[in-house]
Amino acid sequence: MTVEQILRAQAAAANRGIDALLISPGADLRYLTGYDALPLERLTCLVIPVGAEPFLVVPELEEPAARAGIALAPDVELVVWKETADPFDVICRRLPSGLARIAVDDHMWADRVLTFARLLADVRLIAAGPVMTELRMRKTSREVDALRAAGAAIDSVHRQMGLWLRAGRTEREVARDVADAIASAGHTRADFVIIGSGPNSASPHHEASDRVISAGEPIVVDISGTMPDGYRSDCTRTYSIGEPPADHAAYFAVLHAAQTAQVNAVRPGITAGDLDAVGCDIISAAGYGPNFVHRTGHGIGLDVHEPPYIMAGSDLVIEPGMAFSIEPGIYLPGRHGARIEDIVICTTTGGLPVNAVTHDLQIL
Amino acid sequence: MTVEQILRAQAAAANRGIDALLISPGADLRYLTGYDALPLERLTCLVIPVGAEPFLVVPELEEPAARAGIALAPDVELVVWKETADPFDVICRRLPSGLARIAVDDHMWADRVLTFARLLADVRLIAAGPVMTELRMRKTSREVDALRAAGAAIDSVHRQMGLWLRAGRTEREVARDVADAIASAGHTRADFVIIGSGPNSASPHHEASDRVISAGEPIVVDISGTMPDGYRSDCTRTYSIGEPPADHAAYFAVLHAAQTAQVNAVRPGITAGDLDAVGCDIISAAGYGPNFVHRTGHGIGLDVHEPPYIMAGSDLVIEPGMAFSIEPGIYLPGRHGARIEDIVICTTTGGLPVNAVTHDLQIL
Repeated sequence: MTVEQILRAQAAAANRGIDALLISPGADLRYLTGYDALPLERLTCLVIPVGAEPFLVVPELEEPAARAGIALAPDVELVVWKETADPFDVICRRLPSGLARIAVDDHMWADRVLTFARLLADVRLIAAGPVMTELRMRKTSREVDALRAAGAAIDSVHRQMGLWLRAGRTEREVARDVADAIASAGHTRADFVIIGSGPNSASPHHEASDRVISAGEPIVVDISGTMPDGYRSDCTRTYSIGEPPADHAAYFAVLHAAQTAQVNAVRPGITAGDLDAVGCDIISAAGYGPNFVHRTGHGIGLDVHEPPYIMAGSDLVIEPGMAFSIEPGIYLPGRHGARIEDIVICTTTGGLPVNAVTHDLQIL
Repeated sequence: MTVEQILRAQAAAANRGIDALLISPGADLRYLTGYDALPLERLTCLVIPVGAEPFLVVPELEEPAARAGIALAPDVELVVWKETADPFDVICRRLPSGLARIAVDDHMWADRVLTFARLLADVRLIAAGPVMTELRMRKTSREVDALRAAGAAIDSVHRQMGLWLRAGRTEREVARDVADAIASAGHTRADFVIIGSGPNSASPHHEASDRVISAGEPIVVDISGTMPDGYRSDCTRTYSIGEPPADHAAYFAVLHAAQTAQVNAVRPGITAGDLDAVGCDIISAAGYGPNFVHRTGHGIGLDVHEPPYIMAGSDLVIEPGMAFSIEPGIYLPGRHGARIEDIVICTTTGGLPVNAVTHDLQIL
């Protein structure tokens, strides 16, 4: 009995004229089967023909893990290949004949894509991204619950930040403690820990360095982890050790207003581009337009960055179930910066933030 | 001034009739430039035309990280693309004209491969694996030093195993302590921690579960981490809480003899298949052939699994500088198992193991 999410994948594929999906280890495979497969050199691949039963091709060594892992699709057939067999051959011989268009998951490794392209010379290979995005971008109520649990977990880490974030410590020392706390808060792992102090707070993708944190410095703390069910947390708050510089306090107020306005603007029917503009307009009106150098946000689920992307020019229409970050920032290169990030879920009535920890500049 | 490893990549590509290499974030990019780029949705790609200067295409947000990261190729030109630009277009317009064959790194994401395939319709896209393997499979003396440092770090974790591996604890509790110790021993992260106790020791890719470890049980501990320079450790030892079952002791002696013989058989000129057979023959002669269900080993370097693979039927000739695991195992399904793993570097005179911690069954 094929499960709901695989039936929906088959329908979405059929609507796009796709005859089969090939899904290798990653978030797409986990979404469809529950199996959190390791990205190994031995091929594991879920094959979903439209109009025929799906099957999961796994190396013999991974059979126990696969069998235990496919909790969301327990009846999917396992096709086990032995150490000296050719799994590509196994797949190609089991595929229904006469297929014209096959889609591979967006993150399948190039050597596999090119091997399939060679073996399936009469088939047009395309990216499965649009099909999988159509499914994964609209979260089910189970997924919304998972993202809310992840949000509560990462909030609890921010609430304890004063334990670790102190003058005289290096960013790296703080980051290590924070990573431990992310794990202790219920995540299976920390995905990233950005501790950007002083001038590093003006570098959006700075991670953590041996820089010693001093009093009077703003610190951007952007942290993320993976929960046992695979769903991700991601939350940014800005701190200061003692009073921040006066101009920082001024633009932080602008940023706070922009982020709040964007969260409040989330509703079904707004475009991602218009949602981005809500923040850009407020920041630009205050004279900081050139200091907001990235888009407003990214979707989140089994991947920490996934569609929808909230960015200028996007016509994507926000719908109930979509989950994404609202994370504007203002950066004064070489001096300091600030960012505030919540994960927000669009509901039928508006935006539901999963993060509840205070948005104010936290003075430690 | 183009650096040595990029010149060698250009030469290896030219030898295979390849006109350019496209390298996305991953071990290949780190090998060529030193840059440990995050695998982000925004495209970062090193372009190495044969006979022209290489350039690294990076999103604006990653420019500081890229500039700091390219320590092994400091003079490579950075081509920065802005948030609303199309990086594929940037690359295609800068590529020399008239290229016939372009190779993409083996792990480039499918959506990127398929985008390049569409934009470069007259070009044949192939996998860069053979070119990069030719370079990466033979370690330089700097890389050998890096692998030896990683080996010493993971050995120190095995030496302390008695601190954590005790009856009454769950595999997962032990695994968490071991992961912390891997980080404390100088790794930037633990890559995997396999704690297979009792019947789980008979499942080669079991990781760690909530099973409570009891006295009299064999435990396979297979652990790995990444050092700050990106090089990996990987070492397996088998433990027992108190005396193991009598039949376990019997086949452990066989396994120990097989693993020792294989390490001693490493020398330039032997094939990977023959090296595999050295262990299989000893294990089979003792009647445990069907219980050794995987190949002997895998290469290691910036990836924890990379060529050469030490497996039956492989004609690959072992050469000085190659680094790989020798890790035979004997598994009695549902009962217990054992595995011993060292990383061994082939030198001109024979095999140099990087792991020095005792191979004996450790009774705790």
